[in-house]
Amino acid sequence: MLERFKVPEADRVYVKQERARKVTEAVLRHSGVSAAGARASAEVLITNDLRGVESHGVSNGLRRYVRQYANKELNPRPRPKILKETSTTARVDGDLALGTEVGAWCMNMAIEKARQHGIGAVSLMNTGHLAGCGYYAYMATENDMIGHMMTAGGGHQTLPTFGAKPLLGTNPIAWAAPARKMPPFLLDVATTQVAGNKIELARRTGHTLFPGWIAKKDGTAIMEEVLAPTAGTYYMLPFGGTRENGSHKAYGLAVMNEIMCNELSSMGPGPLLEHAGGSFFAAYSIEAFTDLEKFKDDMDRMLEAFATCPPAPGFDRVLYPGLSEHEEFVDRTSRGIPYHREVVEWFESYCAETGIECELR
Amino acid sequence: MLERFKVPEADRVYVKQERARKVTEAVLRHSGVSAAGARASAEVLITNDLRGVESHGVSNGLRRYVRQYANKELNPRPRPKILKETSTTARVDGDLALGTEVGAWCMNMAIEKARQHGIGAVSLMNTGHLAGCGYYAYMATENDMIGHMMTAGGGHQTLPTFGAKPLLGTNPIAWAAPARKMPPFLLDVATTQVAGNKIELARRTGHTLFPGWIAKKDGTAIMEEVLAPTAGTYYMLPFGGTRENGSHKAYGLAVMNEIMCNELSSMGPGPLLEHAGGSFFAAYSIEAFTDLEKFKDDMDRMLEAFATCPPAPGFDRVLYPGLSEHEEFVDRTSRGIPYHREVVEWFESYCAETGIECELR
Repeated sequence: MLERFKVPEADRVYVKQERARKVTEAVLRHSGVSAAGARASAEVLITNDLRGVESHGVSNGLRRYVRQYANKELNPRPRPKILKETSTTARVDGDLALGTEVGAWCMNMAIEKARQHGIGAVSLMNTGHLAGCGYYAYMATENDMIGHMMTAGGGHQTLPTFGAKPLLGTNPIAWAAPARKMPPFLLDVATTQVAGNKIELARRTGHTLFPGWIAKKDGTAIMEEVLAPTAGTYYMLPFGGTRENGSHKAYGLAVMNEIMCNELSSMGPGPLLEHAGGSFFAAYSIEAFTDLEKFKDDMDRMLEAFATCPPAPGFDRVLYPGLSEHEEFVDRTSRGIPYHREVVEWFESYCAETGIECELR
Repeated sequence: MLERFKVPEADRVYVKQERARKVTEAVLRHSGVSAAGARASAEVLITNDLRGVESHGVSNGLRRYVRQYANKELNPRPRPKILKETSTTARVDGDLALGTEVGAWCMNMAIEKARQHGIGAVSLMNTGHLAGCGYYAYMATENDMIGHMMTAGGGHQTLPTFGAKPLLGTNPIAWAAPARKMPPFLLDVATTQVAGNKIELARRTGHTLFPGWIAKKDGTAIMEEVLAPTAGTYYMLPFGGTRENGSHKAYGLAVMNEIMCNELSSMGPGPLLEHAGGSFFAAYSIEAFTDLEKFKDDMDRMLEAFATCPPAPGFDRVLYPGLSEHEEFVDRTSRGIPYHREVVEWFESYCAETGIECELR
């Protein structure tokens, strides 16, 4: 994550993960969510926070989910239904569950199908926020599989390349693959220049956005560095920003995401409908293709080649996707998660109002 | 394709596809390739030329393949072997076939597995050039499936984000999906700012490269517009170009490609080995997930929303991946393929030398 998105040192409150998890579960339970559902959602959100992906942890998400449960936009007691199923595929109606409650269930279904038949994939419709894709893709690595997960969330905020009308969400893509000694490969990226939540984070921390990150409402890319504007005054651009820097490729990947998440789940065209977006989960058994032990050895050597690549002038080191997330996970598991004090204060005031026990500090 | 990569009007020789196909097959036959093999390769190359993807047609490829057959880097009479197989997966040794000869065979295997079991995927090792990924992904659309194809080709030319050592190829990714009335979705993009072949095309047409497209050999991105340099004097960058414009996302996708193509095929780590790179072919049966007719209707509505999106100031229209390729295909099928006269002259001189009949004009 770019420095500008990190919580400034002075504003940090370090919270042990068990404490954050306990309060998060209690807040969800207060919204009527079952014990198992609250546990599943807290597991996704707190794992994201531990991995340094706080844009998709409790900071931005939880207060929104509480509001959505109160408004009946989310169903606290969902009964997901399998609408179609084959040995390798399934299509699931999430019954308006919070995505974090039902996502792992879908990914586990894909994993079990892959264990039996080599590959498994599940398309999911009718849920709330999944809180990123990385958590679900990563689950495959714990089963000696390659994971692929996408969600077409984020409403209408992103312009197609050359376009003036926002037709896409942030449409993120995740892939994950296991190694032996090296931390697993874990890629989880929005197809926009920046995840929607990060603009909110930048606004909270007072940081600017880079040239080519967002566009004016007539579709013109803003090519100066600007303070994060308030929602509704700008549109997002596919990553790359301009055609010359490859934004048409990220736009194309966003449309692929739209197809796999919305058309394949039968939610229907995201650009035309006001829905929250479907999702897609896939798992590939490594053993169905090749020798697992050789694969892991090769992964170690390959990932190490990136981690030890000499850096270009002005840079400290080369990362690969998943490496800094692993380092953050280890560090934050022992030191605690550095939440912005505003987030801790929200927890405390919400819990005081609702009579939830709240021991975060 | 950017204007600068198109063959200038004055240098164009329009060649009817049947003529280009006949001579291409004859040139391959002269290298010892079987009639079926030559037909398969010409089909990929000429289809790319018809779609306007001349960076992956006969212009750059054919003379290289002839040289590789002569050097015994390619096997003109390959016997591809299935090394491992399940109901949904296979791993294939290409026996040093030109990739265009064996690629469609692998994709058809993935399609047949998907027809039987919902999903099919094949990893392929030991081949020459595949000539892009789009051709193979598109094959799935003709079978009411979604296609996914990647190849880890292109040697060591691309820097990881922040890195000074080129560890990746151009690692392209293709996805394709059918619609009903609208031309199919067809995305085929290198994870670099520009396909390697396009730098050769720009050199031939005397055009410049944009800022952030390539880097100096110490890893520093060249942020001015420069003439296309000769091979060996620069490195490529992942698309986006810089971290601020999302190059780490394209770099991450390139590593995913490396894993799916090289580790899953057991070719082994591309960054460490001097091999040509493996490939990955996958097909998803739409009917295994949802109603095919609704899917196609939804695709039409979704793709039309992009094709009719109002353009931003300074742009004529909004495209979606596959739309201009379809338009080029229709136009070039009737008018002929506008080859650079240098390409036609190469055909003519090679054919004169080798006694191959050559009626292109």
